[in-house]
Amino acid sequence: MSSELNFGDLSVSIFGESHGAGIGAVINGLPSGVELDIDRILDFMARRAPKKDGMSTRRSEKDTPEILSGFFNGKTTGTPLAAVIRNTDTRSQDYGNIAVSARPGHADYTGFKRYNGANDPRGGGHFSGRLTAPLVFAGAVCAQALEKYGIESCAHILAIDGVYDDSFNELDVPPDLMRRIKERPFPVINESREEEMRARVLSAAEDLDSVGGIIECAITGLPAGIGSPMFDGIENRISQAVFGIPAVKAVAFGKGFGFAEMRGSEANDPMYIENNAVKTSTNNNGGIYGGISSGMPVIFTAAVKPTPSIAKPQKTVDFLKGENTELVIKGRHDACIVPRAVPVVEAAANIAILSFLV
Amino acid sequence: MSSELNFGDLSVSIFGESHGAGIGAVINGLPSGVELDIDRILDFMARRAPKKDGMSTRRSEKDTPEILSGFFNGKTTGTPLAAVIRNTDTRSQDYGNIAVSARPGHADYTGFKRYNGANDPRGGGHFSGRLTAPLVFAGAVCAQALEKYGIESCAHILAIDGVYDDSFNELDVPPDLMRRIKERPFPVINESREEEMRARVLSAAEDLDSVGGIIECAITGLPAGIGSPMFDGIENRISQAVFGIPAVKAVAFGKGFGFAEMRGSEANDPMYIENNAVKTSTNNNGGIYGGISSGMPVIFTAAVKPTPSIAKPQKTVDFLKGENTELVIKGRHDACIVPRAVPVVEAAANIAILSFLV
Amino acid sequence: MSSELNFGDLSVSIFGESHGAGIGAVINGLPSGVELDIDRILDFMARRAPKKDGMSTRRSEKDTPEILSGFFNGKTTGTPLAAVIRNTDTRSQDYGNIAVSARPGHADYTGFKRYNGANDPRGGGHFSGRLTAPLVFAGAVCAQALEKYGIESCAHILAIDGVYDDSFNELDVPPDLMRRIKERPFPVINESREEEMRARVLSAAEDLDSVGGIIECAITGLPAGIGSPMFDGIENRISQAVFGIPAVKAVAFGKGFGFAEMRGSEANDPMYIENNAVKTSTNNNGGIYGGISSGMPVIFTAAVKPTPSIAKPQKTVDFLKGENTELVIKGRHDACIVPRAVPVVEAAANIAILSFLV
Amino acid sequence: MSSELNFGDLSVSIFGESHGAGIGAVINGLPSGVELDIDRILDFMARRAPKKDGMSTRRSEKDTPEILSGFFNGKTTGTPLAAVIRNTDTRSQDYGNIAVSARPGHADYTGFKRYNGANDPRGGGHFSGRLTAPLVFAGAVCAQALEKYGIESCAHILAIDGVYDDSFNELDVPPDLMRRIKERPFPVINESREEEMRARVLSAAEDLDSVGGIIECAITGLPAGIGSPMFDGIENRISQAVFGIPAVKAVAFGKGFGFAEMRGSEANDPMYIENNAVKTSTNNNGGIYGGISSGMPVIFTAAVKPTPSIAKPQKTVDFLKGENTELVIKGRHDACIVPRAVPVVEAAANIAILSFLV
Repeated sequence: MSSELNFGDLSVSIFGESHGAGIGAVINGLPSGVELDIDRILDFMARRAPKKDGMSTRRSEKDTPEILSGFFNGKTTGTPLAAVIRNTDTRSQDYGNIAVSARPGHADYTGFKRYNGANDPRGGGHFSGRLTAPLVFAGAVCAQALEKYGIESCAHILAIDGVYDDSFNELDVPPDLMRRIKERPFPVINESREEEMRARVLSAAEDLDSVGGIIECAITGLPAGIGSPMFDGIENRISQAVFGIPAVKAVAFGKGFGFAEMRGSEANDPMYIENNAVKTSTNNNGGIYGGISSGMPVIFTAAVKPTPSIAKPQKTVDFLKGENTELVIKGRHDACIVPRAVPVVEAAANIAILSFLV
Repeated sequence: MSSELNFGDLSVSIFGESHGAGIGAVINGLPSGVELDIDRILDFMARRAPKKDGMSTRRSEKDTPEILSGFFNGKTTGTPLAAVIRNTDTRSQDYGNIAVSARPGHADYTGFKRYNGANDPRGGGHFSGRLTAPLVFAGAVCAQALEKYGIESCAHILAIDGVYDDSFNELDVPPDLMRRIKERPFPVINESREEEMRARVLSAAEDLDSVGGIIECAITGLPAGIGSPMFDGIENRISQAVFGIPAVKAVAFGKGFGFAEMRGSEANDPMYIENNAVKTSTNNNGGIYGGISSGMPVIFTAAVKPTPSIAKPQKTVDFLKGENTELVIKGRHDACIVPRAVPVVEAAANIAILSFLV
Repeated sequence: MSSELNFGDLSVSIFGESHGAGIGAVINGLPSGVELDIDRILDFMARRAPKKDGMSTRRSEKDTPEILSGFFNGKTTGTPLAAVIRNTDTRSQDYGNIAVSARPGHADYTGFKRYNGANDPRGGGHFSGRLTAPLVFAGAVCAQALEKYGIESCAHILAIDGVYDDSFNELDVPPDLMRRIKERPFPVINESREEEMRARVLSAAEDLDSVGGIIECAITGLPAGIGSPMFDGIENRISQAVFGIPAVKAVAFGKGFGFAEMRGSEANDPMYIENNAVKTSTNNNGGIYGGISSGMPVIFTAAVKPTPSIAKPQKTVDFLKGENTELVIKGRHDACIVPRAVPVVEAAANIAILSFLV
Repeated sequence: MSSELNFGDLSVSIFGESHGAGIGAVINGLPSGVELDIDRILDFMARRAPKKDGMSTRRSEKDTPEILSGFFNGKTTGTPLAAVIRNTDTRSQDYGNIAVSARPGHADYTGFKRYNGANDPRGGGHFSGRLTAPLVFAGAVCAQALEKYGIESCAHILAIDGVYDDSFNELDVPPDLMRRIKERPFPVINESREEEMRARVLSAAEDLDSVGGIIECAITGLPAGIGSPMFDGIENRISQAVFGIPAVKAVAFGKGFGFAEMRGSEANDPMYIENNAVKTSTNNNGGIYGGISSGMPVIFTAAVKPTPSIAKPQKTVDFLKGENTELVIKGRHDACIVPRAVPVVEAAANIAILSFLV
C-alpha cells in the first residue's frame, strides 16, 4: 500500500495533504497494555518541529495530535490507534504558481502524472514533508512500546554540506549519549561541529539556496536472532520505511558503500565470547547478517538531499500548457531539513524494529 | 514474508537451501499470454553462473530450472509460475566445521539464533548466495514481460575494490549499450577498466582474501507517473528487493550519498519540454520524485560487501560450545562476487518495476 | 491486519471504539478523479442509521463523517481518503456493569482475553456495531467509484425470524428495483412481507428479546473474467469483508447450502449465447465459477444472528472475579439489526468488488 | 495473491495445473524445529486420494510429495518448506473437447476470460480439484505444528444429497472420536448413515449424475483469546481458506443460517465458570465471538456443490466460435466429491488456525 507500512502483524497507515483539513496515522497491531506518556510523544514530535533559529521555516506548526482510538486508561488497547493532526496555519496563496509550474526536485510533475491531475497540489499535497509529522507520532508510540524490550534508537546529524559529525561507536552506543543527543536542538554527537554546520546552512540560505546531508541512526538492545532472511529482514523493512521519508535518496547499513573499498579480512567482523554472549570486535555489518540481528548495535545511515524548495529562479515547465518557464518559489522553506529529519529517521526505524517483536 | 516479495498484485516467493534437494521460485500475478523465450532466460541465468576465469567458484552449477506450472504453449498462463532448480554438485563435507564455528560476516550465528538451531547450516542453507539463482530466474521472466511495455534494465560493475568503471549517462542509456554490457563476461561500460579490476580480484585471491564493489543499474522506458508516494514507491520496492541479495549493504538512487555535498540549486533537476515531453537536463534524482517515475532513466547503485568466505584464518566462536576458536574456511569461493551479482541486481529491479505495471 | 481489508491495491482500514473520541476509515488505493456526491454518501449512511420506528435504538446517531484527506475539488485525489465520525451521544453509565459481567453472545470475554484486559470495553469498544458506520462510509465511496464501470450492488432483507421476502431473480436484477429497495425504510422486495416481519421484531422486543435474519445482496454489471482462482477470488474477498460485520455468522453464494440437496444436472448452469454474449439459463452459482465472475449477477446471502443485547436476565460470568452471575442489560438496543445491516453488507460487497478493478 | 494464503506471518502458496509437470506448495513462516512424521502426512493425504469403491475417479493418484526445502534432520527449519507432486497418470485426450466447449458449473469460461485464453485448460488446469492435493499437504504439516499447542481439527461428512450424519456435540469433541473419524474410509460420525449416503451417490452415478453435500469441521484445544476483530479473525481466515476449495459455495459458523430463525435468548450462549475456566452451556456461536476464540470448540460447516463433471449431455457454448452446443463429458469423475473434500476442509482450517499462533 502506497502510504502504509505493512510489516507482518504491525502496520502504520499515513494519510493527509499539506493544506487539507488534517493529516494523521493509524497504527494497527500495537501490543495491548503499553502505557503511553503523551508528554514524551509530544517531546519526540517537537524535535521535528521547526525551530526559531533561522534554520527552518517560520511556520508555527503546532502539530498536536489528537488520539481518536486505541488508547484507553493511559494504555494502548491493542486495537487500531488513530491520531489526527489538524492543519491550521497554511497560506495557500504562497503556492499559487505551483499547480502549473513544476518545482524542480519535487513530485509536482510525477504526482500529476500518477494521479491524472486529480491530486491536491497545494504545498506538495500528500507528498509534503508535513506528512512526516504523523510518521513521527507513530514512531514515538513505537519507541515507548520498544522500551519494554529494552530497545532504544537514536539518530543524529552525521553530515551537512560536507561537514561531518563523529560517527557512533559501532560497538557501544550508551543510553546516556542517546539521551543527550535527543535533548539537543541541533542533534550532533560532537558539538564542536555544530557551528560550522550552521554556518553552511545560513550561507546557503543567504544565497537563496539549500544544502543536504546524512543522518546516522543506531538501535541498541536488540537481541540476536531478530529479523528474517532475504526480503523481510531488518535491512528490507528499515529501508522501505526510511525511503518513505521525502528527500531520502540512499540507505546504507554498517560500512555501506565503504565496503566497496574493503577486503573481506577487514570487512568480516571477528567474533568472540564475552560473559557467555557472542560479540564482534568490529561491527562493519551494522549488527545485521542475513537480515537478522547479531546482538550488536544496528547502525545505518540515510542520505538527505538538499531541500528542493529554493528561492533562486529555476528553469522548469508549465506542464498544463506544455511550455518552458522559469519559477521563483516564494513562501517559507527550510534551507536544510536534515536536523528536522533526524527524529523522522528514528521514528521510521522504531516502526520497523517493533514490527519484528509484536 | 521473509523469503517473498509481495508487491501489490505481483509476488515472488523463493525457497530452498544450498545443499538441500532443490531451490526454486513461485511467481504469482504475472500477466497472462507473455511469450517466454527459454533460451534467453537461460542466457540471463548464465550471466550469474560461475565463470572459468579464476574469478569465481569452480563448482559447475548447471542451475537449469524446470518450469512446473504457469507456462503453456510457450506463454505464461497468468496462474502461478513455479520453477525448480535441483542441487547436484554439492560437497557437504567442505562445510563440516561450519555448523559449530560461525563464519564471520555470514549469517551462521544469526540464523542459528533466529531458528533456534533448526535451520539447515550446510553451505549457508537458505542464506546461501545460491538462492539468487531462482531470483535471477524470476527476474529473467519479468524482463520478458517488461518488453511489451518497452522497458529494459541493465546493470554493470561500477566499482571493484576502489577501481571505478564509468557511470551510465544519467540522461540516456541506449539499448545498444545495454546489449553490449549484457554480452560481456565481465560487465563493465569502459572495458579499459576490466584489467585492473581483475587484477585486484586475483591479488585478493592470492592473499586468501576477497574484495567488494558497487553495482549500478539503469531502467529505461518507464513512462512518467509509475510508482506511489511514501512507502510503496519505486525506491521502496527496489530497495526491499535488492537488500534481499546477500552481501548488499547499501542502496542509493541518483546521486545518493553525493547529495550530502550538493546544494539545492545543483541537485534540483531543471525541467524542460522537448517534443511535447517533459524532460530534465540533469537526472540527479535517478528518475524518481516522490517515489514516482519522471520518464527519465531510473538509476540506482548497490554496495556489495567483500565475499565473507575467505581462506585466511579468522577469529570466531563455536556457538554451541560457547568457546572462542579460529576458523579456516575450506571449499571453493569467489574472491569477488560483484560480477555475478550484476544480473541479480538487474533481476531484482525487473521484479520491482514489473510489479507497478501488472 | 485485524481491522483492515487488504485487497490487492485497495485497502480499507477501520478504527475507533464505540465510546471513544471518534471512529473512522482510511481508504487507500482509490482511483483518482472520481467525483464524489457527498449527499449520496450521507443517504447511503442514513440507510444504516437507527430509525424512529420502534425497531431500533433510540440514540440519534448523527454519524456525519468529516473527510480529512484524499478529496479535493469534489474528486478523489488517489491518495489516502480518511474520514472521521465523532462520537457524541454516548451514555457510558448504561454500560457500567459490562466491564466485569460478560454479555453472552458478545465479544466482552474474548476481547478481554485477546487484549489482556486493556481494550476499551465501553459499549463493546472496537467490537461495537457502531464500527460499521465507517465501513458503510467506505462502501458508499466505493459505490460511486463502481458506477464508472457500470457496476451496482443492492442488498435487502431476505428473512427475519423465519419470515421470508422474495429472492432476487438470479438472472436479472434491474436498476429500477435496486433503486426502489434502497429508498425503502424497510428494504424488502415484496412489501407485503414487511408487516409480518415488523410484527416479529416488535413481538420479540415486547418479550425483551431479539430476532435474527438473512440478508441477500446482488451485484450487477460485473463483466465476465473478474476475480481469481483459489484464495483471492470474489467469494474469498466478499466473505472476508462480510464476516467483518458483527453478528454475521454465515455467507453463501448462489444456492449455497441448497447445493447439498441438488444433483449436478440441476446445479450446473446451462450456458448459451445471446447477442454474442455468453449467458446461463440458471444462475445457481451466483455468477461465480472458480472465484471469477461469469457476467451474470453475483448473488450471495449472509446470516445475521439475533442482537445479543437483550433485556432479559441472562446467566453469565464476572470474569474478573471468576464468578457466575446474572446480567440484565440496560441501555438502548435494536431488537433486530437486520434492516440496519442491509447497507453494511452492500458496503462490504462494494469494497470487495472495487478491489478487483483498481 | 490469487493462489496464496497470506495470514500474518504464515503463508501458503499453491501452484500447478492438473495436466502440467507438477503441482505443489510453498509454506512460509512455519515455526522452526517442528518434528514432521512424513508417514502421517501421507496418511492425511491418503484420506483425500480416490478410493477404489466406485465412488470416486479411477485414476490412481500417487500424489507423493517430494519435500524440496525447509525440512532438515526430521524437523522444520523455519525457512520456506516447498513440496512438489509430480503429475503422472493424466490422459489429456479425455479432455479434448473442453478447450472450446465450456463445461457447465466449471471455470472453463470464466478462466478463459480472466486469462485471455492463455491459461492451461487441460483438466481444468489451475482450477482443478487436483490442486487440493498440495493444500492437503500444507494442512497436514500445519496439523503437526498445531499438536504442540494441543490443538486438533477433524472434519466429517455432515450431509450428502439430503442424507444427514449426526453433528458434532458442540460442547465436546473428544480426541478419540476425531481419531475414529479420520480412520474411516467414509468419514461420518454415525456409521449407520453411510449406507444410505453411498446409495445416493451410486444412484446418481448410475444416472450419469452427481450429488453435493455438507462438511462439518471442529477444532479443539484453541485457548480463549485467539483471533482478531473485524477483518482478520477466525471466521475471516477460515472462510478465505475454505472458499479456496473448488466446489465450496457456503461457509457457516456455529448455527450459521439457523440463527435466522432463533431469538437472542436462545442464540446467546450462557456463560459459567467451571474449574476456574469460562465455559458456555451452549455453543451456538461455534466458539467464536468478535472473530476471537472463546475456548469452546470452533465449529463450522461448508457446502459442497455436486461435482460439475457429469456424463449427461449438457447445453453449453463453444466460446471460441461463439456458438451454442451440447457437451458430453467423458473421462473419469467422482459422482460425489464430498468424502474426498473432508480432509481438504480440515487442512484449510489447520492453516488458518496455525496462522494465529506463529
